[in-house]
Amino acid sequence: MELLEALKWRYATKRMNGQKVPEEKLNRILEAIQLAPTSMGLQPFSVIVVEDENVRKKISEKANKQPQVLEGSHLLIFAAWDSVTPEKVDGYMADIAKTRGLEVASLAGFKDMITGFVGGIGDEAVKNWTARQAYIAFGVGLVAAANEQVDATPMEGFDNATMDEVLGLKEKGLNSVVMITLGYRDEKNDSLVAAEKVRRQKTELFIMH
Amino acid sequence: MELLEALKWRYATKRMNGQKVPEEKLNRILEAIQLAPTSMGLQPFSVIVVEDENVRKKISEKANKQPQVLEGSHLLIFAAWDSVTPEKVDGYMADIAKTRGLEVASLAGFKDMITGFVGGIGDEAVKNWTARQAYIAFGVGLVAAANEQVDATPMEGFDNATMDEVLGLKEKGLNSVVMITLGYRDEKNDSLVAAEKVRRQKTELFIMH
Repeated sequence: MELLEALKWRYATKRMNGQKVPEEKLNRILEAIQLAPTSMGLQPFSVIVVEDENVRKKISEKANKQPQVLEGSHLLIFAAWDSVTPEKVDGYMADIAKTRGLEVASLAGFKDMITGFVGGIGDEAVKNWTARQAYIAFGVGLVAAANEQVDATPMEGFDNATMDEVLGLKEKGLNSVVMITLGYRDEKNDSLVAAEKVRRQKTELFIMH
Repeated sequence: MELLEALKWRYATKRMNGQKVPEEKLNRILEAIQLAPTSMGLQPFSVIVVEDENVRKKISEKANKQPQVLEGSHLLIFAAWDSVTPEKVDGYMADIAKTRGLEVASLAGFKDMITGFVGGIGDEAVKNWTARQAYIAFGVGLVAAANEQVDATPMEGFDNATMDEVLGLKEKGLNSVVMITLGYRDEKNDSLVAAEKVRRQKTELFIMH
């Protein structure tokens, strides 16, 4: 499917029909998320993939009562790093060195750039920055789902603290920021199935120079 | 091109060759950005599209000295709303009503939801929230560029205040958050052309339940 067609086809699905997203489609969506660009390539987040019905029930009861959490088949919860620790930066340097056949020492300048940036903006700004990187991957994930003709509900409106508790994220140095429910639209019960897409006019959204 | 292939093909291009991105490719990239999902559909940002060389020179000199600003052919500067004003929410309600053939009055509940949310989180959080929405569109824009085989450099590292000044964004209630340079890779001079892509392992990036 053409990208623009996929983007027109998708919508924030309000009701899903319980049909399960096949493994190979899920895997391609996850691969797209893995490939998503992020600032300095750091990927400062994890994505919690929840298929287990009991976990989804807990999330539904405690953190998010929207029906898609159970009517879909998978949740992707994007959880940003609370902080960028030296261990994490070292791990990234080791990954680059290994993948590209370089000495870690040759990456000292790049490492200094990352630690300098992170050290210079303050803890709260770091959390906002890691969250923004997660949002890039979230956007890519939504495109990838549409490209697979898998319906998705982007969700910000949930109880983040409770979500973090249910998934044990705090101990992992993570905080949930945004979520995607994957599944298939319920054509009969979703009142938005046939609704015209509303977007700001190009003349308003874009300023041309 | 398959989406995953496009994502593997793309990389944060460091040097571009001056070739111009054709109008029809640019337009499809912009259309993808326009179609990008955002929270409650509000699209609380604008995208400044800069082709004019004089404006790009100003940006290059004052806000961002990276060579792609001039070696590429277009800049897309994502600028988030400073605040979500009642006028903007009313404009959105009018758009929905018009597009879907509804009475504006029937959208009162939805309008209250938006104003309640925005009013409840504080000015600084609103700015972070509008920025995050821009990051979704930014992610979609990067996918769309790759899909068109157009190279792109995602850029956060520029002088935002100076950028806002050069583009007159403050008066428009906007603040620049992130940028894409569009163009074509300079195969000879970009040392990253052949570099292996580095990504966190799936076992680290994803937590499965």
